[in-house]
Amino acid sequence: MGVEERRQQLIGVALELFARRSPDEVSIDDIAAAAGISRPLVYHYFPGKLSLYEAALKRASEDLAGRFAEPHEGPLGARLLRVMRRYFDFVDKHGPGFSALMRGGPAVPVGAAHSISHVSTTNALIDSVRQAAYEQILSHLTIADPPARLELVVRSWISLAESTALIWLDGRRIPREELEVQLVQNFAALMAVSAANDEELRKLLGPMLGDEPADGPFGNLVTRLIALAS
Amino acid sequence: MGVEERRQQLIGVALELFARRSPDEVSIDDIAAAAGISRPLVYHYFPGKLSLYEAALKRASEDLAGRFAEPHEGPLGARLLRVMRRYFDFVDKHGPGFSALMRGGPAVPVGAAHSISHVSTTNALIDSVRQAAYEQILSHLTIADPPARLELVVRSWISLAESTALIWLDGRRIPREELEVQLVQNFAALMAVSAANDEELRKLLGPMLGDEPADGPFGNLVTRLIALAS
Repeated sequence: MGVEERRQQLIGVALELFARRSPDEVSIDDIAAAAGISRPLVYHYFPGKLSLYEAALKRASEDLAGRFAEPHEGPLGARLLRVMRRYFDFVDKHGPGFSALMRGGPAVPVGAAHSISHVSTTNALIDSVRQAAYEQILSHLTIADPPARLELVVRSWISLAESTALIWLDGRRIPREELEVQLVQNFAALMAVSAANDEELRKLLGPMLGDEPADGPFGNLVTRLIALAS
Repeated sequence: MGVEERRQQLIGVALELFARRSPDEVSIDDIAAAAGISRPLVYHYFPGKLSLYEAALKRASEDLAGRFAEPHEGPLGARLLRVMRRYFDFVDKHGPGFSALMRGGPAVPVGAAHSISHVSTTNALIDSVRQAAYEQILSHLTIADPPARLELVVRSWISLAESTALIWLDGRRIPREELEVQLVQNFAALMAVSAANDEELRKLLGPMLGDEPADGPFGNLVTRLIALAS
């Protein structure tokens, strides 16, 4: 194998192991064994576990950001639901690695020094994924220059989606399909709260919601809320 | 001053400095100067900046958790609004220190090693504050053994409150009083979404909302949403 090919193989092996156990429980020996190569050879391609972890995180971040891309066609609620499905596919696949990362926990073996540059690298990658999600949502809302209140709703909903996924992973006590729909409806609900209090948002969002079908996630929520209120 | 008295003074001085600049921009020299003592004397009470930072974080965590305590009297929306006011008082007061902590950034000087035990300590303190918030909310809902869907709504709303505060701190472009009300209304909206989809939650939450006055944050939201829908 060439150098780049071998590096990519090791990243893939590491991601598979991080999907089953928290990264701090995975050693270079585990990765070497799973890749069928010697420990010194792993170090030939990555100077340490940290650099391999960062490379794996970079690939996973690109994978996740890629899942946000959705054609600008059809009702908004259905688009967001498709993205939520792909998001939970990712969360499902990377379980322990995703939890360890998002809980800000160490990704290096217990006892090892945890460098500032590593913290900066992981935070920058997490932020880049959040920014990709934010920009995708704005592009679907066809709003280039969002007012502060809209930016707040979109960014805070993204953090709600993260915490919902983390809580789901901790025991998986609720079917993920239910949470995918719930997050789409939460988006509408948080938008509605902000629009209820702000004229500018009402004008921006009103026209969009008029296009939502009664049987989509947004229409379905309205029907159920009306039933709940009565 | 006695040892404990001096330690408490230094913690207070550190918290004041962290409220104006990010902790990684505050040196032991700054703390010594602000306390009017020598640098070696600071080290006599705290072996390093990390231990002083952790002591300051511990005091701030206890302060914040204490703000969640609210008498079990009157409508739920008004109770939660009072807690949100005290929460934003805290966020306002500790601005840069709160941001640096919650963004998972380094709290130690750039270039220094960032130990695993420090990451564990800060994460444990953050989690203890989240848990205190969670338990307070359940006690006001008078629910001792919450179903998984209720736990999810409460815990994910707590993370929404954190991200809303962080986004607010980044530029303070929206009046905080507006966000205090908005978070109370977001709580109701997220509860309504989950209750709309789940019979068990409807039974648990229905009776509570019947007691909310029309001019409280919950009633106000309903009035505005009805106006928005028509």
